[in-house]
Amino acid sequence: MQDTSRLAGVIAPVLTPFAEDGSPDGERFVEHCQWLLDEGCTALAPFGTTSEGPSLGLDERMELLEELIDAGVAPSQLMPGTGTSSLSDTIELTAHAVEVGCGGVLVLPPYFFKDPSEEGLFRYYSELIEEVGDHRLRLYLYHIPQMSAVPVTRNLVDRLRSAYPDEIAGLKDSSGNMAGTLDLMDSFPDLAIFPASEAVLLEGLKHGAAGCISATANVQPRAIRALYEAAEGPEADALQFRVAAVRAAILKAPTIPGIKALISHARSDPQWRVVRPPLVALDEAEEMRLVAALKSDCEFALRIE
Amino acid sequence: MQDTSRLAGVIAPVLTPFAEDGSPDGERFVEHCQWLLDEGCTALAPFGTTSEGPSLGLDERMELLEELIDAGVAPSQLMPGTGTSSLSDTIELTAHAVEVGCGGVLVLPPYFFKDPSEEGLFRYYSELIEEVGDHRLRLYLYHIPQMSAVPVTRNLVDRLRSAYPDEIAGLKDSSGNMAGTLDLMDSFPDLAIFPASEAVLLEGLKHGAAGCISATANVQPRAIRALYEAAEGPEADALQFRVAAVRAAILKAPTIPGIKALISHARSDPQWRVVRPPLVALDEAEEMRLVAALKSDCEFALRIE
Repeated sequence: MQDTSRLAGVIAPVLTPFAEDGSPDGERFVEHCQWLLDEGCTALAPFGTTSEGPSLGLDERMELLEELIDAGVAPSQLMPGTGTSSLSDTIELTAHAVEVGCGGVLVLPPYFFKDPSEEGLFRYYSELIEEVGDHRLRLYLYHIPQMSAVPVTRNLVDRLRSAYPDEIAGLKDSSGNMAGTLDLMDSFPDLAIFPASEAVLLEGLKHGAAGCISATANVQPRAIRALYEAAEGPEADALQFRVAAVRAAILKAPTIPGIKALISHARSDPQWRVVRPPLVALDEAEEMRLVAALKSDCEFALRIE
Repeated sequence: MQDTSRLAGVIAPVLTPFAEDGSPDGERFVEHCQWLLDEGCTALAPFGTTSEGPSLGLDERMELLEELIDAGVAPSQLMPGTGTSSLSDTIELTAHAVEVGCGGVLVLPPYFFKDPSEEGLFRYYSELIEEVGDHRLRLYLYHIPQMSAVPVTRNLVDRLRSAYPDEIAGLKDSSGNMAGTLDLMDSFPDLAIFPASEAVLLEGLKHGAAGCISATANVQPRAIRALYEAAEGPEADALQFRVAAVRAAILKAPTIPGIKALISHARSDPQWRVVRPPLVALDEAEEMRLVAALKSDCEFALRIE
């Protein structure tokens, strides 16, 4: 299953911590990344949706990425989000990620203009690949229509894969439509396809998924990794049931502020609550409900007391 | 009507010309801007939606803006689009526009995260204004929910205007919902409010609109200016009917590629057809239909032969 040129396994779309003044906190970012890898993540996807990636500036993304690599994280384990609504900014971020040796990049479609044609999206990704012009590029398409409002269709995947078989490495499917995800896996067995939830990891792996890239891997990386490793063993179903229950409990609150509140609570670090506008932090009652749910009902990778 | 600290009149969201290789063409950009001002635009709004602004890179926007000012266009007549999905990138573009003396900035709400709370959007614009921290900032809110998917609500406008009465200068309403636009004008008589269409210019002016910021002002600036000037005269209705008919004819084709095709045709300059992905140029049949419609049915500021 492990193709050396493809990322696989349990990938966390890493939260981005901010200082109270709203600037990214490189130190806490590196710490959290190292904790995720220690806990069993096989790779990291910084600057995705859960990372508030589209709220970060171009310079901020490049600086955080370099800090992470300087701190000793292997760039081959990194799949930063480099997609913006602008082709030129996306080229800049993608070229930078390839230059510093990232194992892949996760690229949103351009998400400002609505209802773009398939041809327009094909040209967008084509120009990106050709302008970056580096055989080391491994591009993962990012299908998250509820947020981007611009779907990455099966036909678009097919055209891109045929035109750029080396560069188009895979796809993250955050649509929540597992039937569609399974269809993509059946149709493109040579692509590394990741559902965005550990709640369907077992089902995905049976159909050839490369793993999962899940927001809640920021909270329960060890449990998801155990499930990934035990997928063909006798305990798989029980582990699957447990990680799905934890995930469901976490997602009762708004995803990003909720996960940040949990990290804040587990580490006794109020600063972890800070989100960047347009998001807002949970209020105290929401936070207490979330913490209580995770204390009473679930086993949990982070120690919530 | 002309408040010296507010922009008003006929404002074109300037098309961005690209070279065949896809890079912005500064020379044609400056030429088109100067033509628009010569033809009667009172101000220009580069890097808006019609400008393919969200498809441009941060550096590209700042460079084009500087080229325009270096070419002698008064920055006081400029209202560049500076909104991105990222607070930090938006601060960078906005601070730059204020530093070079722009009369205003047109700021999209952050458009990646969907259904943000009013509080989150209020904080976004607040942090922008406070981080830019320059009393010369004149910020025009940009309501274009069909594209941004994030509406700028009446309540948000009210909160921002109360908190930042000097900086919040006005609003462009591209919703196409004239009842809503009129309500905003009635509610906020101290704001410079611009419908996005010259087809409602007369009605808008009667209710206190500051003018209009219209895509099709790239094509018929002189006629719209004539209407603006004659708004209280006996010919107003006839002029209004005519500009509305021309606009309707233009908008039968996809807006941005259509307007670029018209400019290309009028100037015998094929390069003007180039759009940046995810947009695609009109095909030959679409272009011929559009040109024919404007030749036979309408008076036209550009000479189409």
